[in-house]
Amino acid sequence: MKKNILVIPGDGIGPEVTTWGKAVLEQIAKGFGHDFSYDEALMGHAAIEATGNPLPDETLEKAKKSDAILFGAVGHAKYDNDPSLKVRPEQGLLKIRKELGLYANLRPILLFDELLNASSIKPSILKGTDILFFRELTGDVYFGEKTRSEDNNTASDLMIYHRYEVERIARKAFEAAMQRRKRLCSVDKANVLESSRLWRETVQQIAKEYPEVQTDHMFIDNAAMQLIKDPKQFDVVLTANLFGDILTDEASQIAGSMGMLASASVGESTGFFEPIHGSAHDITGKNLANPLASILSVSLMLEIGFGLKDEAKVIIDAVDQVLKEGFRTNDIADDTTNPYKVLGTKEMGQLVLK
Amino acid sequence: MKKNILVIPGDGIGPEVTTWGKAVLEQIAKGFGHDFSYDEALMGHAAIEATGNPLPDETLEKAKKSDAILFGAVGHAKYDNDPSLKVRPEQGLLKIRKELGLYANLRPILLFDELLNASSIKPSILKGTDILFFRELTGDVYFGEKTRSEDNNTASDLMIYHRYEVERIARKAFEAAMQRRKRLCSVDKANVLESSRLWRETVQQIAKEYPEVQTDHMFIDNAAMQLIKDPKQFDVVLTANLFGDILTDEASQIAGSMGMLASASVGESTGFFEPIHGSAHDITGKNLANPLASILSVSLMLEIGFGLKDEAKVIIDAVDQVLKEGFRTNDIADDTTNPYKVLGTKEMGQLVLK
Ligand SMILES: CC(C)[C@H](C(=O)O)[C@@H](O)C(=O)O
Ligand SMILES: CC(C)[C@H](C(=O)O)[C@@H](O)C(=O)O
Repeated sequence: MKKNILVIPGDGIGPEVTTWGKAVLEQIAKGFGHDFSYDEALMGHAAIEATGNPLPDETLEKAKKSDAILFGAVGHAKYDNDPSLKVRPEQGLLKIRKELGLYANLRPILLFDELLNASSIKPSILKGTDILFFRELTGDVYFGEKTRSEDNNTASDLMIYHRYEVERIARKAFEAAMQRRKRLCSVDKANVLESSRLWRETVQQIAKEYPEVQTDHMFIDNAAMQLIKDPKQFDVVLTANLFGDILTDEASQIAGSMGMLASASVGESTGFFEPIHGSAHDITGKNLANPLASILSVSLMLEIGFGLKDEAKVIIDAVDQVLKEGFRTNDIADDTTNPYKVLGTKEMGQLVLK
Repeated sequence: MKKNILVIPGDGIGPEVTTWGKAVLEQIAKGFGHDFSYDEALMGHAAIEATGNPLPDETLEKAKKSDAILFGAVGHAKYDNDPSLKVRPEQGLLKIRKELGLYANLRPILLFDELLNASSIKPSILKGTDILFFRELTGDVYFGEKTRSEDNNTASDLMIYHRYEVERIARKAFEAAMQRRKRLCSVDKANVLESSRLWRETVQQIAKEYPEVQTDHMFIDNAAMQLIKDPKQFDVVLTANLFGDILTDEASQIAGSMGMLASASVGESTGFFEPIHGSAHDITGKNLANPLASILSVSLMLEIGFGLKDEAKVIIDAVDQVLKEGFRTNDIADDTTNPYKVLGTKEMGQLVLK
């Protein structure tokens, strides 16, 4: 198979972890005889520094021409500490999601048995959990109009949904549910928000096309609680952009660490694959970041982006193997971990490669 | 002390649990020689059924004249299943919050040692947790303008904050932090939302008035994760209406169950005291609801509303005692609970009274 892959390392630990994602991709290509070519581009703070623009035109053009994108992370403490800065790293990420029409963000909660103890949640509660989140990614309060009053004393963001936006992601989520345990939980705040009422109505409508799927609706506050209380009750979870952002980060505790979770954003054409963790400037450059989320992003690229199931499985098995042998990065180590088996980014990356 | 208390039982399990909150209040009044008088009023679905209005004028008038309000819950499955209904129970609750100027919702996460095992989170992670949430309650996307397009295909809610709204709740939260461990974490989504940037700027400004308080800012997605990963890191958490709704429900898992958490809403005058749980129509009328959140709401009324610390403590001690003796309602029972000590609403209420 011949594919053009664009690598966008981004900021913070982005470059460190993406190095290992890419290395795994190269190895898979070699092993399975695929012809993958690579290009690289800037985004986020790195791009602002170099060009003044968090998403340079050149990056967007390369992105549109590629078959898949492997992304790291964006963000920088400077902007977090100064909310008045007008040009911000995250704008690059939001713009590329919008420009590429990446409306569906898939976040599988993959639970490696070896990491059951790494979580703050009891193993008995976690065991058997298998959730696939569908987070809407190009609408909601993320993209609605923003205002700041003249006197600087009032600020707003419009939380807005169009029916077609809900329909298209709902269909994707129901299709996925049909391939899984045939349960779907849609999360909203329909008891307060008009946009959530449109969301709920629309999901109820689409649900009729999938009578085999058992559909539930849950309020976001309750969902945030149920996810911790009894995660096994969920199969496919469908939700809006903001609620999905919150729930999936929370759900990372099920997998033991943010450092283990990958996501696939798909929609109109090119797929976009990234760890769900952020730029983590506090540990940047210290060889402490967990490269597994980036490596698992590559397995999502192979499976969801290119339909290469066997190749994807080889990666997951390799990760599983390394964990079985007791190796951990800092974020997934626990009291029972042999301290000699706690590895840096590089060492963990190399082990998975082997 | 002479006080007028308005009881609004509301919907679902509201009436069941409020009965016990009120009974405890009466007992305290008797024991300490206070002169509390009571009135009752309708809100939510119950009020819609009786008057067509989720917050009848009569209820609002009584509320304004009272010294404190003991509230149960609102909500009904009928409205949850039909997002197109225009008159909804929750409107009553939102309107009374706004009309009474209840802009600060305090939600203490009170952790009874006896319930450490009732949580899905590991006891070692929980032990020592003591968080006080300040949730803004009369602004945000809850109260911004709502629209629905003519063709019914687009819906929106305006997420909006004014500087004074952030300032007044921030001051209350910083004052509380000064009385506690002097740490405050403000939660927002300033990397994406303009209203969050105003929020963050304003909190940074107010923080200067409290140099002794160690102030942090966290994004909501990260906060939802950190709350489960390491709840002990938090002292006072300050956040907006929507984010506070989500985080405090999630945090209920720290206390073992929603059925244990009470909240106090304060602002311009009359205080409003309620369990954080909802109407729970699935268990309504089955003598299954946990009355402790309502009983603990009464202790908040006594302490925060009336400044009666000793009286408040008597209630907390009584709850502690009952838990120490091994008694539980269904929601807080675990594998180690003696099945004969799992009680109904009524029996638990009676025990605390004793
Ligand atoms: C960096 C930020 C803009 C982004 C988001 O909020 O979508 C991130 O948290 C994510 O979940 O991908
Ligand atoms: C019932 C609902 C409107 C309410 C809210 O969202 O504020 C509830 O969830 C709460 O937290 O008090």
